[in-house]
Amino acid sequence: MPKGLKKSAKTSISRHAERGSYDRELAYSILDEGMVAHVGLDTGEGVMVIPMTYARLGDDLILHGAVASRWLSSFTEGRSISVCVTLLDGLVLAQSAFSHSMNYRSVVMFGQARLVEDKKMKQAAFKALLDQLVPGRWVDSRQPDEREADATTVLTLPIVEASVKVRSGPPKDAAKDLDLPYWTGVIPLQIAAGEAIPDPIMNDGRDIPDYVTNYDPRQG
Amino acid sequence: MPKGLKKSAKTSISRHAERGSYDRELAYSILDEGMVAHVGLDTGEGVMVIPMTYARLGDDLILHGAVASRWLSSFTEGRSISVCVTLLDGLVLAQSAFSHSMNYRSVVMFGQARLVEDKKMKQAAFKALLDQLVPGRWVDSRQPDEREADATTVLTLPIVEASVKVRSGPPKDAAKDLDLPYWTGVIPLQIAAGEAIPDPIMNDGRDIPDYVTNYDPRQG
Repeated sequence: MPKGLKKSAKTSISRHAERGSYDRELAYSILDEGMVAHVGLDTGEGVMVIPMTYARLGDDLILHGAVASRWLSSFTEGRSISVCVTLLDGLVLAQSAFSHSMNYRSVVMFGQARLVEDKKMKQAAFKALLDQLVPGRWVDSRQPDEREADATTVLTLPIVEASVKVRSGPPKDAAKDLDLPYWTGVIPLQIAAGEAIPDPIMNDGRDIPDYVTNYDPRQG
Repeated sequence: MPKGLKKSAKTSISRHAERGSYDRELAYSILDEGMVAHVGLDTGEGVMVIPMTYARLGDDLILHGAVASRWLSSFTEGRSISVCVTLLDGLVLAQSAFSHSMNYRSVVMFGQARLVEDKKMKQAAFKALLDQLVPGRWVDSRQPDEREADATTVLTLPIVEASVKVRSGPPKDAAKDLDLPYWTGVIPLQIAAGEAIPDPIMNDGRDIPDYVTNYDPRQG
């Protein structure tokens, strides 16, 4: 594993610096748990943020989309993009409205995405993208054929210029507020999976796979 | 309520146009359920995406942060920002890796944020920000004093140039894949609240309020 993440003008953390980190393993644990990335790009007429699925593959972040996508093609035109993955862990209720907060873990990344053209690397990216969402699914689905691979743009963003922010634990009220009468504490939040809904056109009573029945979104 | 959202070069939906909408009520329902917005801004040295809490107040989106924040001040320097709120509803498992998808609802917005300076409007914004996260908490907490209000930058972004994307329902495999043997269907996902964790310094056994015990993240 390469060394820590790169501190730069953009990744330096000025607000709540105590929440900031450049620890690569911590960043990877957040990226591996997340399922949706918010990707910011310069459209030429202002910034745009779009939600995308993603995967971490080694020391790269993988993004993908249709070759026909208007915006995806602009990712590789030399302009830097920014990618943020946020996990919401709880709501922090303090005495003062001002001291309310969220418990969260987030990674913000910057860099230039590179197009993946090698066919084997593209397949590895497709596997990583599916395994990121549902571990175990790749070997239990039809893998992409050449036409599908050709219709898909795959991009990598090296995980270099990035920073992590984490808030956890109880509220931190100002000393003067500690005698107020309100209940304070944390409402923990996490993504939960419901009971799987079989595809209605699949009417032959096939078994739900274990990786679906036992699906844990925190491993997604 | 003003008419539908504004279709523009940036908000026009080219990929999966069937998922797109400019319906204002639908956008509001998504914004009202969400808790974290991803805000994209032009730092002058490339795009940056950061997670922020937010509120919808009438036909405006409210953002806030410390007056001392490096980036927040740049929001009002005439450059357009983009804000995205995404709700993840499920993972869609198809026969082919290629046809896997997510069920989600998202709003992407564009525009120039305006600084809120009026004191009454600022208080209304603080109330909206707290009620967005925990309905009922505003009246059960110490409201911001003048010093706290002065230390906080409040911005509004009119909800005008925006679009909605929604995917729901079962997978849509290509006809040629429908005889494959894999289980297909949807793993539903939603944010769930765990049991509230009282602040350890609050040791006088005060009751957990109903709005905490019965907290529903979908109303957050």
